[in-house]
Amino acid sequence: MRDFNEHTITQAVVDRFAETPDPRLKAVLTSLVRHLHDFVRDVDLTFEEWQAGIAFLTRTGQMCDQHRQEFILLSDTLGVSMLVDAINHRMPEGATETTVLGPFYVEEAPERPNGADISGPLEGTPLLVTGSVSSADGRPLAGATVDVWHADDDGAYDVQQLDALGGLAGRAQFRTDAEGRFHFWTVMPAWYPIPADGPVGEMLKATARHPNRPAHVHFMIAAPGHETLITHVFAADSPWLDSDAVFGVKTSLIAAFAEHPAGPAPDGRAMERPFRHLAYDFGLKAD
Amino acid sequence: MRDFNEHTITQAVVDRFAETPDPRLKAVLTSLVRHLHDFVRDVDLTFEEWQAGIAFLTRTGQMCDQHRQEFILLSDTLGVSMLVDAINHRMPEGATETTVLGPFYVEEAPERPNGADISGPLEGTPLLVTGSVSSADGRPLAGATVDVWHADDDGAYDVQQLDALGGLAGRAQFRTDAEGRFHFWTVMPAWYPIPADGPVGEMLKATARHPNRPAHVHFMIAAPGHETLITHVFAADSPWLDSDAVFGVKTSLIAAFAEHPAGPAPDGRAMERPFRHLAYDFGLKAD
Ligand SMILES: [Fe+2]
Ligand SMILES: [Fe+2]
Repeated sequence: MRDFNEHTITQAVVDRFAETPDPRLKAVLTSLVRHLHDFVRDVDLTFEEWQAGIAFLTRTGQMCDQHRQEFILLSDTLGVSMLVDAINHRMPEGATETTVLGPFYVEEAPERPNGADISGPLEGTPLLVTGSVSSADGRPLAGATVDVWHADDDGAYDVQQLDALGGLAGRAQFRTDAEGRFHFWTVMPAWYPIPADGPVGEMLKATARHPNRPAHVHFMIAAPGHETLITHVFAADSPWLDSDAVFGVKTSLIAAFAEHPAGPAPDGRAMERPFRHLAYDFGLKAD
Repeated sequence: MRDFNEHTITQAVVDRFAETPDPRLKAVLTSLVRHLHDFVRDVDLTFEEWQAGIAFLTRTGQMCDQHRQEFILLSDTLGVSMLVDAINHRMPEGATETTVLGPFYVEEAPERPNGADISGPLEGTPLLVTGSVSSADGRPLAGATVDVWHADDDGAYDVQQLDALGGLAGRAQFRTDAEGRFHFWTVMPAWYPIPADGPVGEMLKATARHPNRPAHVHFMIAAPGHETLITHVFAADSPWLDSDAVFGVKTSLIAAFAEHPAGPAPDGRAMERPFRHLAYDFGLKAD
């Protein structure tokens, strides 16, 4: 076990995992090492490039904090997140398609009653969201948890401006009623650039890629006996639908955020100014 | 550019790099994305495994500070560092072989005169190191910079115990004399486990791998007109020579650290207790 060359070292590393108790971990690490070494050999990685890679990964980790996940952003922009999604979510008829979680999910979003306005201090065109949650076979799911989050009309999430807002906004958890329905008010989110002031921004800039994502609302929907659905609904009139920086757009997830003049809204609220309305019905895959 | 599946997404990501101005960056990122996606597909990576990977990389970045480079440790333990070394250092006859830099190199090591004792507060068996630096063709190189660093007799580097030591120790820069020679005193380093209290330690534990490296002294040697040499010299009587945790051992880099009784040392110093002596001649590859 000495004097490895560029061809023999890969098997030597793989052999070192021989005693790994968990067979799945062993398989994953073995494949990782083989592909990682193949990459290094394919490009004849220089020592300076290796150093740059080490520094890039280090900066990426150090950019992460409670409200910033730069490694998820890196995974998203390299298409890895959507690849993992595609592998794990081959959906039956009637089940809503999935997309990336993204870096702005917060576990402790406040629970709010149906009909609540979750925009808080966020400004923008009022948006009514109405929807339903069913099993993929069409059976309505009462009591499902509907976790939602979205950007404001400047394209910023609450967690990117906590000091200015004084807390979370544009983010809440709802429960579906006996017919599997939910609804809430908020403001229309804008398309936005993913945070570009860190290592991922460096990568996008160096590769002449734009950082933009089309306007969307995030949903995470959970119900007993079903796979938790992580998805977005995209606004049909948004730019960037055909070049989402994180490759997350699926045609089935694009919907009209319909424009309405001032007047009574579908939920009975009297609106003094124009508003928009997203209606979307979600289907969950049974476990 | 929507509705990617697990096969089409890879080309979509590669296409997104089409406008990258630097052709080398484009080639490296294209290869990286292809191999990374192949890995994810080969193992059918689950969403939970992806999450565990994101968390592992994040912890690895956050473990790094001025004196701890956990990503280098990860690269070392996955054999990537030695692979990069093998690709970039196909050495001519007469040139010393290279090995990993390791995570304990410090740029600002103090310059000391030949003959100095650099052990400072470190305890252990005295060690005399004598050596020479030549070009690979045998021509002695005067004025070469010889940067050395090593662990103490507990296997700990100075930067792992700065508070206890009060500063750097077992670390210095020397210059070769007119005949290309250098020498210094220190203490005999012990074999050691790489730092196992971070993510890399988790990985080694989960895979039942030991973290140990055979005893060695690090050298980084620079001279005008030559490639800087980064290497170690390993002690021939050390354990772990055949299972170095970072795959760094080459037979040509193993040398006797000869035991001597108390008495006059080769450099004329009168030793009151037994000491050891490493003599090693280095050859540098011309640019
Ligand atoms: Fe988003
Ligand atoms: Fe070392």
